Amino acid sequence: MKKFMDEKFLLHSDTAVEIYDSICDLPVIDYHCHLDPAAIANNARFRSITEVWLGGDHYKWRLMRHNGVPESHITGDAPDHEKFVAFCATMETAIGNPVYHWAHLELKKYFGYEGDITAANAAEIYALCNSKIEKEDFNVHSLLKACRVEWLATTDDPADDLEFHRQIKDDNAPGVPKVLPTFRPGGALEIEKPTYPEYLKRLGVAANRNITDWDSLRAALENRLDFFHNMGCCISDHSLEPPVFVAGATDSDANEAIKKALFGATLSEREINAYKTRLMSWLGGEYHKRDWVMQVHMVVQRNNNTRMLKLLGPDTGFDCMSDRSFSLALAQMLDDMEQRDALPRTVLYALNPSADDMLATMIGNFAGRGIRGRMQWGSAWWFNDNMPGMKKHLITLANHGLVSTFIGMLTDSRSFLSYPRHEYFRRIISQQIGEWVENGEFPRDMARLQKIAGNLAYYNVKNYFSGV
Amino acid sequence: MKKFMDEKFLLHSDTAVEIYDSICDLPVIDYHCHLDPAAIANNARFRSITEVWLGGDHYKWRLMRHNGVPESHITGDAPDHEKFVAFCATMETAIGNPVYHWAHLELKKYFGYEGDITAANAAEIYALCNSKIEKEDFNVHSLLKACRVEWLATTDDPADDLEFHRQIKDDNAPGVPKVLPTFRPGGALEIEKPTYPEYLKRLGVAANRNITDWDSLRAALENRLDFFHNMGCCISDHSLEPPVFVAGATDSDANEAIKKALFGATLSEREINAYKTRLMSWLGGEYHKRDWVMQVHMVVQRNNNTRMLKLLGPDTGFDCMSDRSFSLALAQMLDDMEQRDALPRTVLYALNPSADDMLATMIGNFAGRGIRGRMQWGSAWWFNDNMPGMKKHLITLANHGLVSTFIGMLTDSRSFLSYPRHEYFRRIISQQIGEWVENGEFPRDMARLQKIAGNLAYYNVKNYFSGV
Amino acid sequence: MKKFMDEKFLLHSDTAVEIYDSICDLPVIDYHCHLDPAAIANNARFRSITEVWLGGDHYKWRLMRHNGVPESHITGDAPDHEKFVAFCATMETAIGNPVYHWAHLELKKYFGYEGDITAANAAEIYALCNSKIEKEDFNVHSLLKACRVEWLATTDDPADDLEFHRQIKDDNAPGVPKVLPTFRPGGALEIEKPTYPEYLKRLGVAANRNITDWDSLRAALENRLDFFHNMGCCISDHSLEPPVFVAGATDSDANEAIKKALFGATLSEREINAYKTRLMSWLGGEYHKRDWVMQVHMVVQRNNNTRMLKLLGPDTGFDCMSDRSFSLALAQMLDDMEQRDALPRTVLYALNPSADDMLATMIGNFAGRGIRGRMQWGSAWWFNDNMPGMKKHLITLANHGLVSTFIGMLTDSRSFLSYPRHEYFRRIISQQIGEWVENGEFPRDMARLQKIAGNLAYYNVKNYFSGV
Repeated sequence: MKKFMDEKFLLHSDTAVEIYDSICDLPVIDYHCHLDPAAIANNARFRSITEVWLGGDHYKWRLMRHNGVPESHITGDAPDHEKFVAFCATMETAIGNPVYHWAHLELKKYFGYEGDITAANAAEIYALCNSKIEKEDFNVHSLLKACRVEWLATTDDPADDLEFHRQIKDDNAPGVPKVLPTFRPGGALEIEKPTYPEYLKRLGVAANRNITDWDSLRAALENRLDFFHNMGCCISDHSLEPPVFVAGATDSDANEAIKKALFGATLSEREINAYKTRLMSWLGGEYHKRDWVMQVHMVVQRNNNTRMLKLLGPDTGFDCMSDRSFSLALAQMLDDMEQRDALPRTVLYALNPSADDMLATMIGNFAGRGIRGRMQWGSAWWFNDNMPGMKKHLITLANHGLVSTFIGMLTDSRSFLSYPRHEYFRRIISQQIGEWVENGEFPRDMARLQKIAGNLAYYNVKNYFSGV
Repeated sequence: MKKFMDEKFLLHSDTAVEIYDSICDLPVIDYHCHLDPAAIANNARFRSITEVWLGGDHYKWRLMRHNGVPESHITGDAPDHEKFVAFCATMETAIGNPVYHWAHLELKKYFGYEGDITAANAAEIYALCNSKIEKEDFNVHSLLKACRVEWLATTDDPADDLEFHRQIKDDNAPGVPKVLPTFRPGGALEIEKPTYPEYLKRLGVAANRNITDWDSLRAALENRLDFFHNMGCCISDHSLEPPVFVAGATDSDANEAIKKALFGATLSEREINAYKTRLMSWLGGEYHKRDWVMQVHMVVQRNNNTRMLKLLGPDTGFDCMSDRSFSLALAQMLDDMEQRDALPRTVLYALNPSADDMLATMIGNFAGRGIRGRMQWGSAWWFNDNMPGMKKHLITLANHGLVSTFIGMLTDSRSFLSYPRHEYFRRIISQQIGEWVENGEFPRDMARLQKIAGNLAYYNVKNYFSGV
Repeated sequence: MKKFMDEKFLLHSDTAVEIYDSICDLPVIDYHCHLDPAAIANNARFRSITEVWLGGDHYKWRLMRHNGVPESHITGDAPDHEKFVAFCATMETAIGNPVYHWAHLELKKYFGYEGDITAANAAEIYALCNSKIEKEDFNVHSLLKACRVEWLATTDDPADDLEFHRQIKDDNAPGVPKVLPTFRPGGALEIEKPTYPEYLKRLGVAANRNITDWDSLRAALENRLDFFHNMGCCISDHSLEPPVFVAGATDSDANEAIKKALFGATLSEREINAYKTRLMSWLGGEYHKRDWVMQVHMVVQRNNNTRMLKLLGPDTGFDCMSDRSFSLALAQMLDDMEQRDALPRTVLYALNPSADDMLATMIGNFAGRGIRGRMQWGSAWWFNDNMPGMKKHLITLANHGLVSTFIGMLTDSRSFLSYPRHEYFRRIISQQIGEWVENGEFPRDMARLQKIAGNLAYYNVKNYFSGV
């Protein structure tokens, strides 16, 4: 029997341990997260372990709700220490859940706590963590340095002024990672939303242009693309729910749709999708022109609980996987770009693992052009960001493609304490590579194995975003 | 190498054995089955092992058909002993199939047969079983007592008079489990079926009311809900193929649909779905009001073989999984109830395991309200009720939620010999918990492990249906 | 730790080894492949290892594209030895990919190379292979004999004159396997394609009939069915993307659709599907009448990359899995045949493993008629033709049906060097059967285990196509 979460956690053979030892100290690149750039710019500090650890983490909230914890002790106004006890009591039986492992890894990494997270231990943990948190040197910068983060990419609206990114850049504080913005133009794509006209106004202000039609929209976006590019951006991000493609859609269709939407009229599904088709097509070309990477996130079904949406807003733990079909529209969208020699390097993510095999083969459709790892099936994501999910991702990718070209892990997190997920990932890739070797399916050529593992942990992603 | 199906069957570590030993003798609660209440009321006895074991079991029939057994020896009029030989010959090579394991567990439990089920052994087994069956004390009551069944819930039509349930209750025979009815109003929902008008008549008779419109339908159903409630019912059951939700559907839509259907006119898809939307919405509220649990079964594709349907009727082994999309309509249906504070505790089941991850995250959308395990992703069901299916269910649930709140196993069976499936389940949860511990992913705190296992085996379900 | 790909490759227990030893030398039946009958008729020889091994293998091409190899070194005009180095360099890190294992098995089997495929070894391997290839006895016939191929079925158009099949038959060369044609009437079904009128002309020429309507189409197809039958054909093949079924479609609908298509008019989706419904219905009956087996391949999304389609044509590595729903239409199509007592023995294949469980239960809907293994869920196919894919297929089939009736492996290959995939399959079934036994889930009755394994490897398929 293995010891509980010791230094060989998730490593079940000597081969796996030897591989892991060679990659565990590599720097971290977090090419997709939702960290708050203001908190980095201001080198924020925290009130308590409850604030920093439970304050915005809907993974933890969902578990607490399953466990019958009242909302007052999750997102409500119960005292910090009571919320913390409720969380520890939830952890006590969270067997098999990744949050259980992340929580232990995080307490160990950032607070030196090596024990068991249970209701009985909650008071001790709470005191220990808060005693560290109240010290001056417990701040955002030290947290990022502790995990050797080389650079990270936040997620940003094209209308954002990126003031905090500029501040971080100008400060140039030693040891603090580069912080790049990511261009996420969802607001400009979601023409069916009542907020669309308002969003175009906001975008127009940022671009110093009045947006009234297709030409002025593109001009405004071009302005923002250039601005983001100058701020170091080399990544875009899209949540396509679902991807759409209308064959034969024209710029004129897009133009009509914008005008109709600005007028307040209701658009037909065809009109909405024609607009999105043209805009994605154009955006892809713009990314390609700037040598950016395009990220596409899919099959998320958001805000399913209207009651809680009204109480707490979005991103509070009421999203789930969608099971809709999207393979055809996705392929058509990418094909349209590829035909015009305008397809950027692309990372595809699906929230529903029933799409795993399909996506692992989808990237093969557009691999090539002499670019190693050009098309990526992104890391096991959100709900799938757990040991069996990551293991399945690696095996599926290996079976249908070339896993050794994979750019690996990202946190997708809002928490400054989430970097041990990279440790988690590195343990899993080491174990998986070791397993193939132990089973006689790949030679025990340690130099080659460590090279593959190092590529998955760090070097592939470093090279993929070569402009950073 | 482990011995074939000995006392450590499916248990691959000492930890697993120790956990299993602590839960194997707990009572059984079977909250969803299709047992015949008349047979319980009358404490039925059986003609032969063929009748009691092969007589109504479409799991076994399917395997025999795959094996080339002629229908005469499956559902036809071949002699009992010939059918039995044909079944044993099928078992002989049924490697990897759950029926193979269930059959061995059942022969061991009820007949003391510890050998191998093969064609060569068929005569011996047949004689042994029949010698037990012909004894007075081989009856429904003793079978239920042998497995420590505390209570069970049959599946019943709202028009049913529950006469046998009343008889069982009045008899109050010592050691015989409580037998609760389950409210399954499929007949009232399936307005598209030609049998609908006839069904409404039957329902009206039961409720002592003429059903002509939306108001009288609800009044009749309310009458039956109250009647079932007084008979101890606390569970409803729905087979939604598929779930539907029409935004903006009104009671007036439902009213029009009923009238049209009673008139014999054909309804449009929108009309059918609007009716179902309103009826499910109302029913959910009624369940919630009575503190019942709502069960929803999905993605079953029934009666695919018309030739055999005509020969044998439904539920004879010609159903399969559907692959249609349903995540959006399901979420909308539940959200509609939740917005009106009318969502009951709910158990969701999908027949197609490609929906596993989606459902495991769907329940998180409506978890909360301070109710532990409020929303359940039901046990691996029907075709998935096997070792890899249950293992996958547990791991998936653990990864996306809090497996320790799971209410566990049900038989969904028509057979009085199927209770060893609870043993099967308990072995699998013990093994899975043991595996997490052996891998160093959870502490070896035996008291905690046994508490989790006991909750999955018995205590969670006992508390979930607290009114029983 | 197991040695890399030694004689116990993929076999992890003594039981597995003992089973494998009993089946490894059985003959091979390859009931579905895409080998070129001309090459067999002419007993072709090869220019170099690059031609024979990399020349038409889109599995390998995809991996090279992922690895950043320029198209010139994949399908372009780079020298043979440079292409070979690029492939070996790709293999070097292709951990977890089936091509990696196939490549090693093939080099061992056909060329006696037992080393590691890497860039550093490329020159040595290239020289070794070419030295064998240039010998007279390295030809198609010797390759087939080396793997004990008993018979194989190519994939052929109904308009084909099968001249090479006749030549092979007439030659009757000793040790050369029987080569049967397969009837694949996709051209006649795909009425929506612009090539349809042209295809009907070609088919008419072959059948010596002018095709102008439903009657003449069927007459022409009947002519070709008879011709193929006389040439030994007993298998048909369909790529249904997707299966369709229009309830109530009539021969008159089909007739109108043909005329409209021949006239050059655009057909509605309903018209297209009604035509396909009637034609599949009729074809099924024709197969059944001749005691043929019907194969149906599904959820392939082809030719996703228009740019590369224009450059290289189809089947060059730009296909992927589709995620569309098809369970209902498929069941309806089969049910229609079964109702008319016209359903042939059928093999169903889906490219997307998310359909695995559905298909494994679909075959149960039409199992029966006293025919052992009547309905088959075909072997893990194309992208799924790897160890985890095959293992999953076996376990899923075993759980939902009777794996011991499975007809097993086919290559689906265009390469004469692909027969070691049967070795790969036999190792996997031996390991899986051994695993069930080692885990105590099936008795260690070696005679029975070897019988099951032998059936999966050879005897089931031999009996299934009993007319050969």
